[in-house]
Amino acid sequence: MTKIIAAEVHDVRFPTAAAGDGSDAINRGDYSASYVELKTDDGLAGAGFTFTNGRGNEITCAAITALQHHVVGRDLAEIVDEPVAFWRSLTADVQLRWLGPEKGVIHMAAGALVNAVWDLRAKAAGVPLWRLLAELPSEELVRTVDFHHITDAITPAEALDILERGRDGLADRLALLERDGFPSYTTSVGWLGYPDDKVRALTRTAYEEGWRAMKMKVGGPIDDDIRRARIIRAEIGPDALLMMDANQVWDVDEAIANMAVLAEVDPYWIEEPTHADDVLGHARIARAVDPIRVATGEVAANRVIFKQLLQADAIGVMQIDACRVAGVNEVLAELLMAAKFGVPVCPHAGGVGLCEYVQHLAIFDYLRVGTSLDGRMVEYVDHLHEHFVDPVRTKDGRYLLPEQPGYSTTLRPESIAEYAFPDGPVWRA
Amino acid sequence: MTKIIAAEVHDVRFPTAAAGDGSDAINRGDYSASYVELKTDDGLAGAGFTFTNGRGNEITCAAITALQHHVVGRDLAEIVDEPVAFWRSLTADVQLRWLGPEKGVIHMAAGALVNAVWDLRAKAAGVPLWRLLAELPSEELVRTVDFHHITDAITPAEALDILERGRDGLADRLALLERDGFPSYTTSVGWLGYPDDKVRALTRTAYEEGWRAMKMKVGGPIDDDIRRARIIRAEIGPDALLMMDANQVWDVDEAIANMAVLAEVDPYWIEEPTHADDVLGHARIARAVDPIRVATGEVAANRVIFKQLLQADAIGVMQIDACRVAGVNEVLAELLMAAKFGVPVCPHAGGVGLCEYVQHLAIFDYLRVGTSLDGRMVEYVDHLHEHFVDPVRTKDGRYLLPEQPGYSTTLRPESIAEYAFPDGPVWRA
Repeated sequence: MTKIIAAEVHDVRFPTAAAGDGSDAINRGDYSASYVELKTDDGLAGAGFTFTNGRGNEITCAAITALQHHVVGRDLAEIVDEPVAFWRSLTADVQLRWLGPEKGVIHMAAGALVNAVWDLRAKAAGVPLWRLLAELPSEELVRTVDFHHITDAITPAEALDILERGRDGLADRLALLERDGFPSYTTSVGWLGYPDDKVRALTRTAYEEGWRAMKMKVGGPIDDDIRRARIIRAEIGPDALLMMDANQVWDVDEAIANMAVLAEVDPYWIEEPTHADDVLGHARIARAVDPIRVATGEVAANRVIFKQLLQADAIGVMQIDACRVAGVNEVLAELLMAAKFGVPVCPHAGGVGLCEYVQHLAIFDYLRVGTSLDGRMVEYVDHLHEHFVDPVRTKDGRYLLPEQPGYSTTLRPESIAEYAFPDGPVWRA
Repeated sequence: MTKIIAAEVHDVRFPTAAAGDGSDAINRGDYSASYVELKTDDGLAGAGFTFTNGRGNEITCAAITALQHHVVGRDLAEIVDEPVAFWRSLTADVQLRWLGPEKGVIHMAAGALVNAVWDLRAKAAGVPLWRLLAELPSEELVRTVDFHHITDAITPAEALDILERGRDGLADRLALLERDGFPSYTTSVGWLGYPDDKVRALTRTAYEEGWRAMKMKVGGPIDDDIRRARIIRAEIGPDALLMMDANQVWDVDEAIANMAVLAEVDPYWIEEPTHADDVLGHARIARAVDPIRVATGEVAANRVIFKQLLQADAIGVMQIDACRVAGVNEVLAELLMAAKFGVPVCPHAGGVGLCEYVQHLAIFDYLRVGTSLDGRMVEYVDHLHEHFVDPVRTKDGRYLLPEQPGYSTTLRPESIAEYAFPDGPVWRA
């Protein structure tokens, strides 16, 4: 028996805003983690966090604290036996639910706790999370998903069928990943805060390092956007992929008009072309910009938003986030819906720790759900990995398989101490 | 000049859960207010709050505190001059925005502050908020709305046209309200926590008091729902309106099937038949249950969700909430869109203080935007009004016009002291 006896919550912030890293049309952040470690009576520690952009990280920490009584005092085996009941205890608390429902601060906090439990479970099993998931019986994976409010898009029987088919060829797919790693793309080249020369130099370096897919930020004045896009396209040649990310800054008709201009440089996808909640708007944009794909998901609040994006043919790329939705259980629902609707999943990463998180999800998706690498790439940003006990490793623009037990979510104790807000040495200075 | 020099935040909670008040398919709450008073250098105090369901009220209070620096230190005149810039300073803060964006805790907190400024503004003008709004020039009302992300549904020019037309006959409509009050309906009769006899007795009393529109909660076992519905219908006769509220508990197909059963008692609307984020699901349900109207909005996160509900013909009744969205400015956008799409607005109320808030919005809507009472009713629940300095007053099932300056949002100091969480006498006991 493994019993969870305590939850330690830490407000950890990295001073990234000053450097212009992560600047885009609407964000200028100090990458932060609302971080929780679940301690057990047999000496394990499960780590989870939600990513935030700096100010307000104390709010998500407060939400984790408000939810922790649903986790502390419980046996891990009991949670594993009743996964949806556990998940709903966090996402459908009769009082806290009002603060979402199932969105924003309270749902992100639930995600941190749910993911900490999955880290704990994988550590207890002595395997990386992707392997734990890939080797679970299909019935157990299905039992992990709350199908409430998504049965009009996918039924448990359909999910079971997808997962059973995902057992075929699994060994071959795993051998391929062990040999080559998982495809990725880089977002480090074209933040809005960077001048043209820096964009050119970063693009050149990334290309030399082996990257053949790169993402730039758009959403500034359209003349600036197209100028920077031409710089990148000139550096990477016609065959490499150039993705664009507008971070929701455009209105629907504005997105359509601007993409008509930016089409000149052959974008592979346009990400977050308008407000993240606007399913119908994304659907209109998708029809207008075809064959350029519409991508979104990093701030999609929950599985019901993803369900509608798929039902409305609004996206050609689904960008799940590991810790905005309520953890692995909800991501599973999203991966299964994407597989049913035939839309590739390219997880959102960057920030702090998002790359560590999503590599597990993408690998599992390939091994057991989506079962294809066609159009699949995990975002990669080369920031802040050094603070993790088990950081991502890449080679030639591909993620290598994580090998340590768990979900790669554990921060180094020295980093927690140094970047603790507001009392860590970095913030006192 | 009136300068805002301080924001006082109070966590105020009323122990309603124990009585079964407010129990429905998914909530069982201690009605609470994350309450803020903005103090000015000339001795005014503007009050705003967001409503929550008890636990977690400290989280929205923390979010108000995190946002208050955008308000404290500013001149009221400067805010009035640049309303959208002010509104965006709260809703699009480059770091805090990530916690929504524009939804849940952080958006509700923005709403509390925005509404406190409107209360202040109306108090400074010496008029109730509904009158302040109704008498503003159309151009100034249009300048108050952020049209970002809704221009595909309504343009500033269209909004101006609606508001200009709303000047015709205004004096007649005001005279009618002064004579009769504003229509309302009661939700106090059919909470899920009440036994049949209590439902019957409450329904009879409400009918005798003059109510001709009543709402019951559904979403329990369908046999219980239809039994309780028959009790109410038998008491109120065939002509009074019976509304139903499922509080999001059903899946889409389940909602359609259950409403086929409940159609027997001739429901006027079905409220929140499924997940609040499911625009496409509401649209399917609306087509299936016609002529029963689909109503929703109490947890609709923002104007972009309302925009889509209208674009998709998903609702026949729009239930705005005064303090889940970011205050009066965003409600204005919603009222204007509803008018353009020809959908009546019946505000969500109940909880604590929601009736005090929304009466102003419904009155303004009738006077200047929607300009009709056809299908318009404000929800009424007879709870907790005694804690307000300027409580709602009703007569024969209608709201009387508020007369005191402001937005009726000011809590009595004795109530704040007594119900302060966790240190007030009520909570220490």
